[in-house]
Amino acid sequence: MASEATSSRRLNIDNINPHVRAAKYAVRGELAVKSEEYRARLAQGATDLPFDTVISANIGNPQQLDQKPITFFRQVLSILENPGLLEKKDVLIEHLGYKTDVIERAEWLLKEVGSVGAYSASNGVPAIRKSVAEFLERRDGFPANWQDIYLSAGASSAVNTLLHIICADKNTGVLVPIPQYPLYTASLSVLDAQCVPYYLNESTNWGTDLNVLKEACEKAKAEGVDVRAVVIINPGNPTGASLPESDIRAVIEFARQERLVIIADEVYQTNVFIGEFISFKKMLRQMQKEQPGVYDNIELASLHSVSKGMVGECGHRGGYFELVGFDPAVQQEIYKFVSIMLCAPVIGQCLVELMVNPPKPGEPSYDLYRAEYDAIFNGLRERANALHAAFEQMEGVECGVPQGSMYLFPRIKLPAKACEAAAAEGRTPDEFYCMRMLEATGVCVVPGSGFGQEPGTLHFRTTFLAPGTEWVGRIVKFHQEFMDKYRD
Amino acid sequence: MASEATSSRRLNIDNINPHVRAAKYAVRGELAVKSEEYRARLAQGATDLPFDTVISANIGNPQQLDQKPITFFRQVLSILENPGLLEKKDVLIEHLGYKTDVIERAEWLLKEVGSVGAYSASNGVPAIRKSVAEFLERRDGFPANWQDIYLSAGASSAVNTLLHIICADKNTGVLVPIPQYPLYTASLSVLDAQCVPYYLNESTNWGTDLNVLKEACEKAKAEGVDVRAVVIINPGNPTGASLPESDIRAVIEFARQERLVIIADEVYQTNVFIGEFISFKKMLRQMQKEQPGVYDNIELASLHSVSKGMVGECGHRGGYFELVGFDPAVQQEIYKFVSIMLCAPVIGQCLVELMVNPPKPGEPSYDLYRAEYDAIFNGLRERANALHAAFEQMEGVECGVPQGSMYLFPRIKLPAKACEAAAAEGRTPDEFYCMRMLEATGVCVVPGSGFGQEPGTLHFRTTFLAPGTEWVGRIVKFHQEFMDKYRD
Repeated sequence: MASEATSSRRLNIDNINPHVRAAKYAVRGELAVKSEEYRARLAQGATDLPFDTVISANIGNPQQLDQKPITFFRQVLSILENPGLLEKKDVLIEHLGYKTDVIERAEWLLKEVGSVGAYSASNGVPAIRKSVAEFLERRDGFPANWQDIYLSAGASSAVNTLLHIICADKNTGVLVPIPQYPLYTASLSVLDAQCVPYYLNESTNWGTDLNVLKEACEKAKAEGVDVRAVVIINPGNPTGASLPESDIRAVIEFARQERLVIIADEVYQTNVFIGEFISFKKMLRQMQKEQPGVYDNIELASLHSVSKGMVGECGHRGGYFELVGFDPAVQQEIYKFVSIMLCAPVIGQCLVELMVNPPKPGEPSYDLYRAEYDAIFNGLRERANALHAAFEQMEGVECGVPQGSMYLFPRIKLPAKACEAAAAEGRTPDEFYCMRMLEATGVCVVPGSGFGQEPGTLHFRTTFLAPGTEWVGRIVKFHQEFMDKYRD
Repeated sequence: MASEATSSRRLNIDNINPHVRAAKYAVRGELAVKSEEYRARLAQGATDLPFDTVISANIGNPQQLDQKPITFFRQVLSILENPGLLEKKDVLIEHLGYKTDVIERAEWLLKEVGSVGAYSASNGVPAIRKSVAEFLERRDGFPANWQDIYLSAGASSAVNTLLHIICADKNTGVLVPIPQYPLYTASLSVLDAQCVPYYLNESTNWGTDLNVLKEACEKAKAEGVDVRAVVIINPGNPTGASLPESDIRAVIEFARQERLVIIADEVYQTNVFIGEFISFKKMLRQMQKEQPGVYDNIELASLHSVSKGMVGECGHRGGYFELVGFDPAVQQEIYKFVSIMLCAPVIGQCLVELMVNPPKPGEPSYDLYRAEYDAIFNGLRERANALHAAFEQMEGVECGVPQGSMYLFPRIKLPAKACEAAAAEGRTPDEFYCMRMLEATGVCVVPGSGFGQEPGTLHFRTTFLAPGTEWVGRIVKFHQEFMDKYRD
């Protein structure tokens, strides 16, 4: 159907980079685009839609859904953007409610960073990397070396960097949990490397099953894949599951046996409702201490971000990764690679510093910080539980209790007629279901196929970030009508 | 020499991604790293160095070198970071000197953006893209479609995106000017595609010579390379040259004949001392108007950034690219690709809006804006001329008059003994010269080999951003001593 003009263009869908074309990223895919069209139509006054608001439950974007930023963080950032404010400290304090620790932190950051409008060192401002290392020491009880910390533009950029280094050719394989956040599969696709999927165990609320991991690895190796790394998302996305200590130990032991680099995506480390977050770094150091020499050669990269947790500052694109056990010569190549993009956004780097070093008890901003932090945490848990309770009522829906992160990932059983209708539209049944949900309710979720799921199972992922419960009612009503319509 | 521990690591210099390893990025290379070590030693009180400050003339990083940010921009950003300030407008106005247009702009941006801590749409905030389109219409006198504007994390990210789409396999070739900003060669190396170099003409102050371009293209095609795109950096980096209208027309005609996508890197469009900046977009639209139908199929991507010009906000990582004539299906793939990294930093997107839509005559912030803008522009020109005058005195140094951008790229003729000493160290003569300069003066510049240069010629690139002229004197003195030492 290409017009003459189209066909004579130099670039067309058939000749561009096939690996980009093959990449899938459903979180921002067709459903998300359609939801934005609905939002624009509503903003223009459309009255022909069966809903009056669009709820973007497709992406963990807290501040789009009315989560308020932490006051301390933003007060500091306002001074970093306009250091001239420091000439009027009395005004800041007396008229604008800035506390002295806000001013002190801003002064310290400006001294260390210079202007936030200047490029920093490629791997980030040294003082901020030192602050991250101190945070890791407090968190884990083991030393951290600031020179092994790399500040990044969110965790996405960290994953991009690490996979670029690890993937040597199309034969390189990386073990990725399924379901997973599709950054991993999309990046491996763009790099033309092999995603080696291993299924999480839905029956144990999305636990990591070592036998499954081993089988996936063995199968890939038997096919000649050079399996080099294993990705663990803990707490899980989209599953919310927090790994217990025994699982973390087992993964580290497996990585040792198979000589795998561990990529620990720990961006949801503060979003934990059940159990306790244990970092891979802490567990590795513990095991190295218990059995000297045995785990010395483990290479671990662990990631964190300002986008999630109670910080929720996705738009600032801040994050870091810590490297443990990497060859210095490889680290030099990582430094060069990140240099090509110059540096992570400097104001986002400053937000990383604030995240890892928030006000302490007794400091002037502490009480407000604590109150805001706790209110966000409790609000997320309440909404998660309310949503879970709704799913419990819904016919053919099964969903484990909320454990953490920002998501629920319910399993849905759809009638055969619905599956036939989906096939007639060229969609998977879960895509079909989510599209009908969006059209009927304005609620945008992501089909399980966007994260991967065991064949024969269907799911969707929804965040529990949107305020109120009215939108949950919309889903319940839609679901009932959908089931009634397609009932066998 | 690898220790046992090293050799048993999974990743080593010989098995990581060979294309990353092959990439070169001298702007942040060995010299830059060494200069930072010197800076740290001086900060710790070292007195054994023959200089007391380090001058980072290796990278266009204005605010690291004391260029002050534009007040209007930063005042708006301070409110975007802390919208709570809007509850105290009277304090902002009466005590902090904020003008009403600062407050109005911040209110408008907050209305359009929501929180700067939320992810925006993958290709940027629609209202900001519309503002960019209006700027382009004013600049060029031709319509611009906001849906063809993509906000990016600086121009570097834009180049990364475009090359990812264009490069289908290792046979894809992209014409890149030599000397060039090494982002292009480094990115093509990482993508394992072909850089097809074309030399700029030093004898016409780094003009673009169409015959050279044609020859380079023909040669690559004869070797079986699928040449798909041509990069033009205008005004040039590292050369500063501004292309005249006739050259731009010739490049567009060449692109038509050879069916090449044009990548116009126009980040220095306001750093022009001699001649006039003419955008590729404007010229293309003009040619389409003059000869209807002939140039309809040209695909053009043009890039701009908040990092350069009088804005100089590199650390905020803001930029955009405009696509002209691209296939909608290809644009969808570009949208998907940028989605994988979610979005450009939102505060940087807001800075793009401020850059393209600064205060207008008659508005409250205009006079200060104008004064700051002009002072930066004039300061850059003065320092460029002072540096050029110094180069004129130096033995064996030739440098065209400063035309624009932020750089001078003098040619140096070094004695044979210096070249021998360089070879003995395993360095190119220009690397050797720049290393000795850094050691003797604390001034960090980049050898010409980092940008590419015609065989048999030697250069270095220096910014003219550093304040004062004392550091220029250091270079002059060093050069004389170097020449005396190695004189044949």
